[in-house]
Amino acid sequence: MPLPPPDIVRAAYAELVVTDLAEARRFYVDLLGLVVSAESDTALYLRGYDELIHHNLILRAGPESAAARLAYRVRTAADLDLAEAFFAALGARTARVPAGVTPGVGEAVRAEDPLGFTVEFFHHADHAERLQQRYDLRRGAEPARLDHFNLVVSDVRAAYEYYTSLGFGLSETIEDETTLYAAWMFRKQTVHDVAFTGGAGPRLHHVAFFTHESHQVLRICDILGSLHAEAQIERGPGRHGVSNAFYLYLRDPDGHRVELYTSDYYTGDPGHPVLRWSVRDPRRRDFWGHPVVESWYTEASTVLDLDGRPQPLLAGKQTAEITVGADGFTRLSFAGAASDALARSAMIHFDHD
Amino acid sequence: MPLPPPDIVRAAYAELVVTDLAEARRFYVDLLGLVVSAESDTALYLRGYDELIHHNLILRAGPESAAARLAYRVRTAADLDLAEAFFAALGARTARVPAGVTPGVGEAVRAEDPLGFTVEFFHHADHAERLQQRYDLRRGAEPARLDHFNLVVSDVRAAYEYYTSLGFGLSETIEDETTLYAAWMFRKQTVHDVAFTGGAGPRLHHVAFFTHESHQVLRICDILGSLHAEAQIERGPGRHGVSNAFYLYLRDPDGHRVELYTSDYYTGDPGHPVLRWSVRDPRRRDFWGHPVVESWYTEASTVLDLDGRPQPLLAGKQTAEITVGADGFTRLSFAGAASDALARSAMIHFDHD
Amino acid sequence: MPLPPPDIVRAAYAELVVTDLAEARRFYVDLLGLVVSAESDTALYLRGYDELIHHNLILRAGPESAAARLAYRVRTAADLDLAEAFFAALGARTARVPAGVTPGVGEAVRAEDPLGFTVEFFHHADHAERLQQRYDLRRGAEPARLDHFNLVVSDVRAAYEYYTSLGFGLSETIEDETTLYAAWMFRKQTVHDVAFTGGAGPRLHHVAFFTHESHQVLRICDILGSLHAEAQIERGPGRHGVSNAFYLYLRDPDGHRVELYTSDYYTGDPGHPVLRWSVRDPRRRDFWGHPVVESWYTEASTVLDLDGRPQPLLAGKQTAEITVGADGFTRLSFAGAASDALARSAMIHFDHD
Amino acid sequence: MPLPPPDIVRAAYAELVVTDLAEARRFYVDLLGLVVSAESDTALYLRGYDELIHHNLILRAGPESAAARLAYRVRTAADLDLAEAFFAALGARTARVPAGVTPGVGEAVRAEDPLGFTVEFFHHADHAERLQQRYDLRRGAEPARLDHFNLVVSDVRAAYEYYTSLGFGLSETIEDETTLYAAWMFRKQTVHDVAFTGGAGPRLHHVAFFTHESHQVLRICDILGSLHAEAQIERGPGRHGVSNAFYLYLRDPDGHRVELYTSDYYTGDPGHPVLRWSVRDPRRRDFWGHPVVESWYTEASTVLDLDGRPQPLLAGKQTAEITVGADGFTRLSFAGAASDALARSAMIHFDHD
Repeated sequence: MPLPPPDIVRAAYAELVVTDLAEARRFYVDLLGLVVSAESDTALYLRGYDELIHHNLILRAGPESAAARLAYRVRTAADLDLAEAFFAALGARTARVPAGVTPGVGEAVRAEDPLGFTVEFFHHADHAERLQQRYDLRRGAEPARLDHFNLVVSDVRAAYEYYTSLGFGLSETIEDETTLYAAWMFRKQTVHDVAFTGGAGPRLHHVAFFTHESHQVLRICDILGSLHAEAQIERGPGRHGVSNAFYLYLRDPDGHRVELYTSDYYTGDPGHPVLRWSVRDPRRRDFWGHPVVESWYTEASTVLDLDGRPQPLLAGKQTAEITVGADGFTRLSFAGAASDALARSAMIHFDHD
Repeated sequence: MPLPPPDIVRAAYAELVVTDLAEARRFYVDLLGLVVSAESDTALYLRGYDELIHHNLILRAGPESAAARLAYRVRTAADLDLAEAFFAALGARTARVPAGVTPGVGEAVRAEDPLGFTVEFFHHADHAERLQQRYDLRRGAEPARLDHFNLVVSDVRAAYEYYTSLGFGLSETIEDETTLYAAWMFRKQTVHDVAFTGGAGPRLHHVAFFTHESHQVLRICDILGSLHAEAQIERGPGRHGVSNAFYLYLRDPDGHRVELYTSDYYTGDPGHPVLRWSVRDPRRRDFWGHPVVESWYTEASTVLDLDGRPQPLLAGKQTAEITVGADGFTRLSFAGAASDALARSAMIHFDHD
Repeated sequence: MPLPPPDIVRAAYAELVVTDLAEARRFYVDLLGLVVSAESDTALYLRGYDELIHHNLILRAGPESAAARLAYRVRTAADLDLAEAFFAALGARTARVPAGVTPGVGEAVRAEDPLGFTVEFFHHADHAERLQQRYDLRRGAEPARLDHFNLVVSDVRAAYEYYTSLGFGLSETIEDETTLYAAWMFRKQTVHDVAFTGGAGPRLHHVAFFTHESHQVLRICDILGSLHAEAQIERGPGRHGVSNAFYLYLRDPDGHRVELYTSDYYTGDPGHPVLRWSVRDPRRRDFWGHPVVESWYTEASTVLDLDGRPQPLLAGKQTAEITVGADGFTRLSFAGAASDALARSAMIHFDHD
Repeated sequence: MPLPPPDIVRAAYAELVVTDLAEARRFYVDLLGLVVSAESDTALYLRGYDELIHHNLILRAGPESAAARLAYRVRTAADLDLAEAFFAALGARTARVPAGVTPGVGEAVRAEDPLGFTVEFFHHADHAERLQQRYDLRRGAEPARLDHFNLVVSDVRAAYEYYTSLGFGLSETIEDETTLYAAWMFRKQTVHDVAFTGGAGPRLHHVAFFTHESHQVLRICDILGSLHAEAQIERGPGRHGVSNAFYLYLRDPDGHRVELYTSDYYTGDPGHPVLRWSVRDPRRRDFWGHPVVESWYTEASTVLDLDGRPQPLLAGKQTAEITVGADGFTRLSFAGAASDALARSAMIHFDHD
């Protein structure tokens, strides 16, 4: 029988290893617009303009690009003990990290979770200066706060079940009769704190920052074009089917993927209903039907274990979503699609309702 | 010793009495863009495009404009018993309302709360059709969901203390050394589910609907101008100091005040820090320093007791915010303000930080 | 020696032949949001919300999808005589069309121009009701007015020279050392009234409608997704390199391509400088570096001669832009592009400046 | 019989005298976001991001705040001679200014015009670096180019007639049966290059810069609020009735008024119809019915004569618009306005159509 999980509040921060801290600073701070909470010769601690805890992202200099850990905030100090016991009962390696090891964060428990990710749980966080009304300081996409992590996992259903045992709710899925291709799960009252993409895992697919309006997302594209850095715009901007958010995927100088994300919806009511998308609906990943670029499905960041060593990959256990069909890759020429589209446009409800 | 309060999820809906249901429908549905969930000869049940429960607003035909009740959703059915006991212990009149009395809502407990408002608590709600991606149906300001209630109360501190006992958190205030002029309190992870404005109370100051982007707020202004209904635009659009939201206040055909509200911030973390605004900061109610129109301070909707009779008013017990000063009413002419403004503009942090 | 050309004011309207007028009405009026100025059993006359002349688009029912003609407004009635003489001197077939043949338009001169397009020149136009402040009527993308025509021509340089002789100015080009791949030319004070794309011609590539803000462009995408008509979104939304406009390409039920276009720039000064883009700059057609979908280069509308018969096609005389290179089709994987992009991002001026 | 006027292209730049150049730079460059084309110890030459000529605004240090001159670009060098003769025939003082006196501008003709303003006409201008796609450099409201001048004149009808003789077209007016209160006149294909406000004149009411989207206008308000410089926000943001533009009025550190202005409409067609607003329509100056603040009607910048001396003021010859009525100052309380507004909202066309 599983132990009670810690009361997780939300996805709080990620630590990424980058190979050139100055280049990373240029991307995340000068262009994207994150705020520097603290910095040293080997690390940067960044947050969004609305964020009231110390940081949402640690960039640490290292020899190889990687995702070192994903950190969740828990409701009380006692939840640290629950976290340690929960993972110990799963047979997972855990570690206590004293307050002060990570600037701005109190004592923490880390674990190698069943999916192969190093996760951290902390309660105490130093409050950062409130900058949400310092419009004079804003730059780039004006990111407000961390929104979520997206993980590449070899078995999406197993990931869903494990995060269910951690107390996460399910908001949306991509599926067919036999397979769960992707799932979105939440603790805070948004569509997700974590989502799963099927593939060789464990890898970090992306971290996402929330912005308030879509024009902020458009602006960072324009800025990147201005600097002839348009190759860092991997996918979007567009409207997601899943989550209904307006999105953009960028690649940082080390190849880490960053999403800008705005306008999803409230999920805080009890019994929040799950929205299930058919893998055959071409709108599920882009509501406007645009193809998902191949790199988005195939490239992701290596993750590190508790000792900082790269985790070996397990091949995806399930059919790859990219191979199944309605993905934009198989977009019909207009001549073929038109009669189809018109027939479908007469429908007034979604398949998944 | 107070009893444990029910676990309130959020502000869910309000019932307003309107004197002409057809006019009210034209305003709320045709212009503002709320969705009709159900209707009868004497009532309309409306919701926002993102809303997944049955309704956020009931408009009921009656002889005199009034606010009949404010409804909060609770987490479990057992919270109804807690609610009943909580109010009984306060000496408040309560009533059980069987499922089905209000379309789309299960059994409920109503009470005349210590502030004089009729409040309702319910757990079960029918799920409405998910329309958040039916952009083809959207109209007007494209309201997404109810955000909050704002109440005129004769004693803001007493209101704050009562809602604290109900388990609400405090996000922001307007105050000076001696007086709490206004307070914003939340259950869901936003700036508020309820706020208090000082004055002769109990009255309903406004109900607020959330929209996703500021251009949706601008559009409803343009539509009202087109129809020569610009007199229904009472205040705004503008940026609030408190909450940082982009806002607009409209008056419905009966004079009920409706706010459109977007881009506030996440408050779900434990120990969320309170932001305290000085009553002397001209940006607290409009971050751009614009005067609050007098009617916004003085006019509000009569509220009804459990039996549907108007509640008598108690005069405000505290200094009226409108009389204190930095309100825009006392805006200096530019000649006077300029040197001042320039001096102040050198400041790089807020007074209240 | 060439005769003096008529004084052309701007691109005014296009006539498209559609195979199902009801379907076309649904697309252009109900979804896109054009205003109906007049209609008959066989034709629709549409305009944008800002437009003060009778129409910007005629949709005429016919057996085969085609573009019947492109109409330019001229400054005075006397310019009709200049137009007739100008084309006669070129050996082109011309025709006088009495006032009233086309609803809302006065006497006109039509000609089969040297590029193979049927062009019309008219001076008088009936004034339409001014609807620019009828925000209550707006739908879809809220198109304001016709902006330009884009033509597929077999010889872009010849097209440029012919339109130069008609008095058009040149704003931007795509070129390399030997070839003019595309050109943008104007009479009104915007980037263009007409542009040329190289390929088998004459064909109509698209007609473009101006909107005021980018969120209006995003909204029509969301609406089409809602109706599962996402296959009609061919390319975009995005930022053009050329013109700096925010753009979207849709395909109507007959396959005619329609652009929504906003935020280009003023070109009315004497000696307006030409902006020349290298065909090797991946930002020239999408400033964010996204691939141009193949259909955008290869598909276009048949054009009709003065007698309403389809014009035969001439193969492109020049290298096809799609084959040259930096087109997005040849987008590097991120791994390859990153070092490149970073190197380039240090540049602070455009190649073409 | 009047002489032929020069062929004026557009309003090109204004020269303002400011008392503290560093403060002015901070406002116009650091906050508003204009680009510095050139600077000296005593002057700044600024332009918008889209502007291709040298400057749109000169700020010159001087002992008293004033507007030194308004400059129009003319189509050819020969128009300078026409300008000189035109004003000489009016009995106006004129002066030839050699190329190079004003950086970036060729030879010019200046005149003291019949309204008392010093106006300049020039043809040649140095081309500035094209920055319209340097999104990485944009700040503040991202102003694109100068749009227009607004002049306080003692006799609006006389101003209208004089500018008509200069070849300007009329786009909109505010009037009643007996009085022309205000007029908007254009050379480039927008609503205006110059407008007239009745009052003690000559004074410069404001210069206006064009931005591409309304969110850019909102952002500069937020920035000014952040810096506690909200007193510099004089009026708006809002939607104009006249011009349909989205607007904002700021006051610079010397009290000069600057408008940000977006989304007006094309006026380039022959016979462009005039839109006449009743002075009694509360939407004419703010389409949302908001009061015009008194300072907007009463305060304006002193103008200098050809020798740099302040022009004496003539009292307004006509009824002041501020005293006539439907100005927002006389806004009814909601209780009074509601039935009225509702009655009016049934109207489906504007009074002035």
